Amino acid sequence: MPFSYSLLATDGLARLGTFHTPHGDIPMPCFAPVGTQATVKTLSPEEVRGGGADMLLANTYHLYLRPGAERVARLGGLHAFMGWDRPILTDSGGFQVFSLSDLRKVDADGVTFRSHIDGSQHRFTPEKVMDIEAKLGADIIMCLDECPDPLDRSYNEEALERTHAWALRCFASQQRPEQQALFGIVQGGIFTDLRLQSVAVLSGLDFPGFGIGGLAVGETKEQMYATLDYTAPALPAAKPRYLMGVGMPEDIVEGVARGVDLFDCVHPTRLARHGGIFTANGRINLRNARFADEPGPLETGCDCYTCTRFSTAYVHHLIRAQETFGLRLTTLHNLRFLQRLMADIRRHIAAGTYASFRQSFLRSYLPIPRLTSDD
Amino acid sequence: MPFSYSLLATDGLARLGTFHTPHGDIPMPCFAPVGTQATVKTLSPEEVRGGGADMLLANTYHLYLRPGAERVARLGGLHAFMGWDRPILTDSGGFQVFSLSDLRKVDADGVTFRSHIDGSQHRFTPEKVMDIEAKLGADIIMCLDECPDPLDRSYNEEALERTHAWALRCFASQQRPEQQALFGIVQGGIFTDLRLQSVAVLSGLDFPGFGIGGLAVGETKEQMYATLDYTAPALPAAKPRYLMGVGMPEDIVEGVARGVDLFDCVHPTRLARHGGIFTANGRINLRNARFADEPGPLETGCDCYTCTRFSTAYVHHLIRAQETFGLRLTTLHNLRFLQRLMADIRRHIAAGTYASFRQSFLRSYLPIPRLTSDD
Repeated sequence: MPFSYSLLATDGLARLGTFHTPHGDIPMPCFAPVGTQATVKTLSPEEVRGGGADMLLANTYHLYLRPGAERVARLGGLHAFMGWDRPILTDSGGFQVFSLSDLRKVDADGVTFRSHIDGSQHRFTPEKVMDIEAKLGADIIMCLDECPDPLDRSYNEEALERTHAWALRCFASQQRPEQQALFGIVQGGIFTDLRLQSVAVLSGLDFPGFGIGGLAVGETKEQMYATLDYTAPALPAAKPRYLMGVGMPEDIVEGVARGVDLFDCVHPTRLARHGGIFTANGRINLRNARFADEPGPLETGCDCYTCTRFSTAYVHHLIRAQETFGLRLTTLHNLRFLQRLMADIRRHIAAGTYASFRQSFLRSYLPIPRLTSDD
Repeated sequence: MPFSYSLLATDGLARLGTFHTPHGDIPMPCFAPVGTQATVKTLSPEEVRGGGADMLLANTYHLYLRPGAERVARLGGLHAFMGWDRPILTDSGGFQVFSLSDLRKVDADGVTFRSHIDGSQHRFTPEKVMDIEAKLGADIIMCLDECPDPLDRSYNEEALERTHAWALRCFASQQRPEQQALFGIVQGGIFTDLRLQSVAVLSGLDFPGFGIGGLAVGETKEQMYATLDYTAPALPAAKPRYLMGVGMPEDIVEGVARGVDLFDCVHPTRLARHGGIFTANGRINLRNARFADEPGPLETGCDCYTCTRFSTAYVHHLIRAQETFGLRLTTLHNLRFLQRLMADIRRHIAAGTYASFRQSFLRSYLPIPRLTSDD
């Protein structure tokens, strides 16, 4: 089997492991930065790797619309196209179709939608998505799923039928199982019976890994954590568990504690571009005037390019002046912060000290939910 | 004398030389990339240096308004603030006051203007500008001058009086002549007698170098070259000559042929951000659909990061998708193109082959004056 997960240690529900792919091993728990349009916004591949990233996520919906999957394939596939020779994961486009595109219409066979770029009409079916993801050529690919409001029970019941049928069709039509690991996606909103039903159905297929979808899209953090409490441990222990679209520091720490192995999220890089900076003592808003004369680094002790080269005052100036280099510097810091966090997490699981690490991290990291309110 | 110019070779009017500064030697002819707000847009200092730049320009007007000269001084000066340890040149802010700011009012003593950022009122006098430039701490600083329409004779006559009086006051009030080389600025529009009068007046002061200002702002290229024909050679041979705000490839080649030693210009980097790419065979518009499937580099044989790592198709995709990394890649290429051009120019002056180089370069480089017309 070309893809396999090695479970190296557990500490409570937290798991230390490695996922083996043709483009290299992925230490888990892992946070994958998002390169929506075949680029992690503002950064070069070397900078992303230099920050410690082992895998990237790219978005099928966006790349299908522009530059097009056939074109990426002609240019050698996503790895060659974007200059990243380590593992890549592509989502199925399902989430974007249901959140970004216009005038979508779902039926049993698939979903028809209009491009958010030019309004042109397109249709995704499970087979079509498998074809697109084969052309893009990522190491991990995801099944087409439907992403309902996690709080709407009747919509979740109805959508889950389609998601399961589509997962079967994706599994049956995947084109390159030796080169690409196809993950199933568990849905079911915040409803215990639906989530467990989804786990049962999908576990019946020999997917090399499983996504947990449909979270962090409207429910409270408590509801998300409660859903993970029963969903993650129910999944097969021999396969990696991927909490899709979730990756704020506190959510990573809580997810790992519930048995999650893989995270991705646009918020850390999007926040960075708006001046939201992760530090061990919580998030700061770099746009605040109190940073205008600060000669020290964004975060004391951080080993990132930004913190070792520039004053907080300089980065503050660049962000205020809307300079692109400022966006690079804050993005580099936030991604490095997360990769240092992942390394800490893996070290503490190996040492059997994850519970105390989790407590101590969350005590000093006090998330500020608003982005620019203190500006 | 802390600053000196060594003339190493001449070839016709073209000059090979070195300008010595406390932050290192500047090989001339030199093109200085522009870092308006203490950053060359999109790039890190290492990337700017890696492309071959020996000096940067920063804009006094912008830095005075934001983050403020006192603040930059408190943070260690411009070199430390922006992480660039090689020579920096600051202009006087005069050009920006006359082109960017609102409601300016000039009198014999100075100029009052409103900030283009917040409308606040400010006043520049020669002494004030010398104080600001001392606080910023660049290696080369420029006198406050007035920048009239180069075609308006009566305005040029009137403005030249002020520019000369202000040059005297800047010369008298400069604060750190051991650390900063103050350059005078020759004005006079496209009028031979005014230019030569300006050269005569300014040459009477022992400036370590001279700017040629007020060009590339409305006159034709032929008028600019004709003005340089008599202005540059009239300046003292033992001092560097800086053609301010000019730096398109064809203008550099023509300026060097007339005895210019130093250039700066925002257009190469601004064009890059709009997809305008320099190649030895002329400028291309990367946004054009014909580049969507091009697997080769932006310019065959170019040694820049972009050309050695990525396909034209990828950079085209990024520019079309409005991705910041695309702006970095095109900026890196255009700056490297210019630094390769400067190295070629210096080599040909040393070899005594500048005339044939100029002819051959201009024959293959066919400038396309419009930016996006073929898109």
